[in-house]
Amino acid sequence: MKALVYHGPGKKSWEEKPRPAVAEATDAIIKILKTTICGTDLHILKGDVPEVTDGRILGHEGIGVIDEVGSAVTNFKKGDRVLISCISSCGKCAYCKRGMYSHCEKGGWILGHLIDGTQAEFVRIPFADNSLYHIPENVDDEAVVMLSDILPTGFECGVLNGQVKPGDTVAIVGAGPIGMAVLLTAQFYTPAEIIMIDVDDNRLEVAKTFGATSTINSRQEDPVAKIFNLTENRGVDVAVEAVGIPATFELCESIIAPGGHIANIGVHGKSVALHLETSWSRNITITTRLVDTATTPMLLKTVASKKIDPTRLITHRFPLQNIMQAYDTFQNAARDKTLKVILVAEA
Amino acid sequence: MKALVYHGPGKKSWEEKPRPAVAEATDAIIKILKTTICGTDLHILKGDVPEVTDGRILGHEGIGVIDEVGSAVTNFKKGDRVLISCISSCGKCAYCKRGMYSHCEKGGWILGHLIDGTQAEFVRIPFADNSLYHIPENVDDEAVVMLSDILPTGFECGVLNGQVKPGDTVAIVGAGPIGMAVLLTAQFYTPAEIIMIDVDDNRLEVAKTFGATSTINSRQEDPVAKIFNLTENRGVDVAVEAVGIPATFELCESIIAPGGHIANIGVHGKSVALHLETSWSRNITITTRLVDTATTPMLLKTVASKKIDPTRLITHRFPLQNIMQAYDTFQNAARDKTLKVILVAEA
Amino acid sequence: MKALVYHGPGKKSWEEKPRPAVAEATDAIIKILKTTICGTDLHILKGDVPEVTDGRILGHEGIGVIDEVGSAVTNFKKGDRVLISCISSCGKCAYCKRGMYSHCEKGGWILGHLIDGTQAEFVRIPFADNSLYHIPENVDDEAVVMLSDILPTGFECGVLNGQVKPGDTVAIVGAGPIGMAVLLTAQFYTPAEIIMIDVDDNRLEVAKTFGATSTINSRQEDPVAKIFNLTENRGVDVAVEAVGIPATFELCESIIAPGGHIANIGVHGKSVALHLETSWSRNITITTRLVDTATTPMLLKTVASKKIDPTRLITHRFPLQNIMQAYDTFQNAARDKTLKVILVAEA
Amino acid sequence: MKALVYHGPGKKSWEEKPRPAVAEATDAIIKILKTTICGTDLHILKGDVPEVTDGRILGHEGIGVIDEVGSAVTNFKKGDRVLISCISSCGKCAYCKRGMYSHCEKGGWILGHLIDGTQAEFVRIPFADNSLYHIPENVDDEAVVMLSDILPTGFECGVLNGQVKPGDTVAIVGAGPIGMAVLLTAQFYTPAEIIMIDVDDNRLEVAKTFGATSTINSRQEDPVAKIFNLTENRGVDVAVEAVGIPATFELCESIIAPGGHIANIGVHGKSVALHLETSWSRNITITTRLVDTATTPMLLKTVASKKIDPTRLITHRFPLQNIMQAYDTFQNAARDKTLKVILVAEA
Repeated sequence: MKALVYHGPGKKSWEEKPRPAVAEATDAIIKILKTTICGTDLHILKGDVPEVTDGRILGHEGIGVIDEVGSAVTNFKKGDRVLISCISSCGKCAYCKRGMYSHCEKGGWILGHLIDGTQAEFVRIPFADNSLYHIPENVDDEAVVMLSDILPTGFECGVLNGQVKPGDTVAIVGAGPIGMAVLLTAQFYTPAEIIMIDVDDNRLEVAKTFGATSTINSRQEDPVAKIFNLTENRGVDVAVEAVGIPATFELCESIIAPGGHIANIGVHGKSVALHLETSWSRNITITTRLVDTATTPMLLKTVASKKIDPTRLITHRFPLQNIMQAYDTFQNAARDKTLKVILVAEA
Repeated sequence: MKALVYHGPGKKSWEEKPRPAVAEATDAIIKILKTTICGTDLHILKGDVPEVTDGRILGHEGIGVIDEVGSAVTNFKKGDRVLISCISSCGKCAYCKRGMYSHCEKGGWILGHLIDGTQAEFVRIPFADNSLYHIPENVDDEAVVMLSDILPTGFECGVLNGQVKPGDTVAIVGAGPIGMAVLLTAQFYTPAEIIMIDVDDNRLEVAKTFGATSTINSRQEDPVAKIFNLTENRGVDVAVEAVGIPATFELCESIIAPGGHIANIGVHGKSVALHLETSWSRNITITTRLVDTATTPMLLKTVASKKIDPTRLITHRFPLQNIMQAYDTFQNAARDKTLKVILVAEA
Repeated sequence: MKALVYHGPGKKSWEEKPRPAVAEATDAIIKILKTTICGTDLHILKGDVPEVTDGRILGHEGIGVIDEVGSAVTNFKKGDRVLISCISSCGKCAYCKRGMYSHCEKGGWILGHLIDGTQAEFVRIPFADNSLYHIPENVDDEAVVMLSDILPTGFECGVLNGQVKPGDTVAIVGAGPIGMAVLLTAQFYTPAEIIMIDVDDNRLEVAKTFGATSTINSRQEDPVAKIFNLTENRGVDVAVEAVGIPATFELCESIIAPGGHIANIGVHGKSVALHLETSWSRNITITTRLVDTATTPMLLKTVASKKIDPTRLITHRFPLQNIMQAYDTFQNAARDKTLKVILVAEA
Repeated sequence: MKALVYHGPGKKSWEEKPRPAVAEATDAIIKILKTTICGTDLHILKGDVPEVTDGRILGHEGIGVIDEVGSAVTNFKKGDRVLISCISSCGKCAYCKRGMYSHCEKGGWILGHLIDGTQAEFVRIPFADNSLYHIPENVDDEAVVMLSDILPTGFECGVLNGQVKPGDTVAIVGAGPIGMAVLLTAQFYTPAEIIMIDVDDNRLEVAKTFGATSTINSRQEDPVAKIFNLTENRGVDVAVEAVGIPATFELCESIIAPGGHIANIGVHGKSVALHLETSWSRNITITTRLVDTATTPMLLKTVASKKIDPTRLITHRFPLQNIMQAYDTFQNAARDKTLKVILVAEA
């Protein structure tokens, strides 16, 4: 089969690889129908994720058709159409029992990381019963691809951890795909105001069409001053960090109201300054989280009932064999106005 | 009347001051029966709290007898024996309605800070109906003094924010009076293990008698190594910071298990390094809080029913007029093995 | 002034009454701008609420302008435009401190019940600081009238108590004004399906325009069978009882899924059969609640930000002096297709 | 092997049965070390549980040693000492993912009910990885037997559902083994008062030694009057029903304070009267639950750390082959002052 293979920092190719086979009784082999590219894949390609080794097939998102299941798989059978979660869950360790699948002792984020991933014609999914989901009828396939990672990430790490409530004022720092997923899913809880902050005017324009009530280009105006102005000098109830650098985290610290929640999603490469000299007395909650995809069943219901349309995150589509071009488009997001790309395998 | 008066950094005296009078209809004047000294009073005396001005009577804790009430006070009458909360609550601003009395628009921590305090023969308490509590019969007066500040601080900022649960492993960094209040009140939720960390062997010995299941003198052994050893390399579920310096906060970051809670209580003078480069994916919650004393009614019930004995925090007692000597003992805590001191006014 | 006065079962009149005056320092006198009629007023007129005595001015909803305030009122001043909560809260008893204003020791539901109410040109509001709310600018007056009672009742007793979550299936039994308020506010939490059940086709039609995804006329089809059909034989996650008779409560018991929540709002006149012989093992939660109006600030934010339009509940408008006609319209709801009526005082 | 076999209402015998074998890859075969008898076993013997058929081996509690595991079992191996949960959990259905194992689509309470149980020398446990727990070293075996059913039942259905908090007043109606388990585990949350109500003076005496702060023999004094007397006419915060008849449930309704929680545990045979005519406005929460044993890991930690001693529930011990005598003792609980019995298999 063909697959997108990592060959060390800066190097990848679309090449022939052996088709995966069932290795454990709990495995399933999936024929990929559609997949996508994640910002994390770009991190890997930069060499930021050293545990990814030469020869690894990348990708941890996608939908497909079950091609084969191991003998212990009971929820799925050949021919079932499934959503692949970016998180593999054994379903029987202490973390899985707490719903904290991200820290599963045998799983977690392993696809396209510690084992071969989904940017391929076929993929082996461990712990299939707990890591795959049936795709409901009448649900758009591309919408479902967004449920592999980006939508649960925005929802769990941003919206749930931020404890967004009706009437709240929410700021989202970073209008990339993750920030946009926060923007879409925050509206499940009907905040009064959602302020999107970024440096890219195109993305801010898109954010407005997605439901942002205000936008701030932080290269053009002071986001702290503007937010205090918008909130009667109170600050925001929830600030979501969706970039991953010290400046954006500290911005969240600067705009949060007493009693507020800062939800970090960004993948940070270094420490940030936590200003306890001012925040020790401000009743602030700060959270971090690797997505657990524990809310996938809930999110599937909201998609199936058309309460949210995650296909709005998709800006480009390519045949799977053109994945090198898709990477180029995804890497040049500002140039190409890219949010998420869809890769479609041949039937 | 006599009072302990601040006269700028390093200067205080026990001197004659005018007896306070009702200024607002919601005020009460209290004849102090017993008061105490807080670590915050020492901070003020160092000059760390510049909004405290020359001439201010210090103190924000104590019990007393109502001497006079304003015309709008309905919960209390002359002669009632009352607990004074360190936090004044107007009861009608948005923060008070949320139970976040610490951020009351007209109150909050003002006693011995922005208005005259309780280290005096009499004190004026604003918003008396929402800032005083009746002392139940048959409850030890000295136990009640601990409910003005230290016990709710340990409980709300440490135990509630840390979300201590039955079976948890809890680490408390700092065995001063606040850390000890965390230790006592954490046991309301029956954690399996409570590890106390400090540099003072005497305090660690005391902690053992208060219920710590392990103690670590971080000058003598590596607390991180020992904690991972005690927890099968998992770390602790809850880490409470009760010191207020970068090293102790970073220690909390080093020992927290995935999914764990770091509850900051310490009053910090500078920022700390938040290691998002490792913690971004570890599902950590970090909280800060100025005590709201919203749990005072609950704590009074636990004291009245003898589920907790806060008098164990008291190591020394002085007549109120000897308060200068009490300050000396409190400031030399290691020398005198001091936790909390009680000052007793003349009958 | 003129007022709607109760004179025993079945008797009421629009008549001259003395204008109210400040009686306590915490009172405010409000000139009524707009008021409405509640189903509870009809109960009173039937004689079902015997503590309401001859001569009582009815009404517990409305907006107005502050005409005078007592000396202890600090949040409001003459000329302020205010929302009157149906619940009076002293702000300083144990229940008020828990946010359970409905059970305030000196307040609770007293307006138009134990003291004179709002169906009048002027009304005295006790505990004004804790029982009134400023009307934000640019918010529709009639929308705000819906926040006195019906919207917080639907939201607190139905939606919050029912713990509606994104993706849930919710059934609302009773499409009267309260059920409609549940329908509108349930959407704050983005349930996947909302099934409205009633016996009045007109109301069911209206419910569809308000967001119901299915409707059931329980006179024409079996609601239990249809709901199990709609939910793959699982039942609903949340069932809200908004009628107040045994049959509708038992219907909720019949359709609730394991792990589900039954939220009672209905004012019941007799006991109902709780089928513990089947439900003891089904992990069901049943709640009751008298509205606390603790969520009024949150609801005001959702109205001000146009996340909800409560004026959709309003079907008829009358000048205040035509209140006898308004009562007729409200009492003949099916005939006149009435939900809520607005009574407008002369400027 | 020998086993206790049900032969229709009123009939049971200790007889030879074939030793169970692995049937599914997820099964484990356990050699029983210790087991016990549950009130539910008596219900079965009365014929109250018609789905239990002639020939069924009874029992759903116990500890043992793994004798054999199916090929898909990874958490356990031959020789491991394990706690058997009364609830079997497949770990991969929608209910299991929510932690609601009691309603597992393929499991739930099936042991000694729909499949052969633990009152035998060997038992087959389905879904072993999710239904067994390793017994920690240095933990008393008999204490662990109490974690199969009775302790999690008391804790989850009574204490967690009742939301017991520090300072609360809790009433427990029924001082049988389940009520006693509530009494022991309620103390994890440090309520101020625990009132035990029963008709058996011996059990009430035992309850006092287990931590009840008051006891009421409801044959000798009016429990409602006494409770209002004990609570300053307020009622209790939490009432736990641990009997299963209308009178005891209605007693809970009569003593609950506004805002309180009624947690039903009792297995009821008929409906009860829910007095909504008074409780509709009292902000009451009523819960039902079949134990999920989701808290077993937490409970094991509290036992291992000696925060609770469940062996206090054990009044009698018998060799397993004397189980007919043990049933007699358990059935004549008042006569023999029985709470729980332990049955010890031969080594």
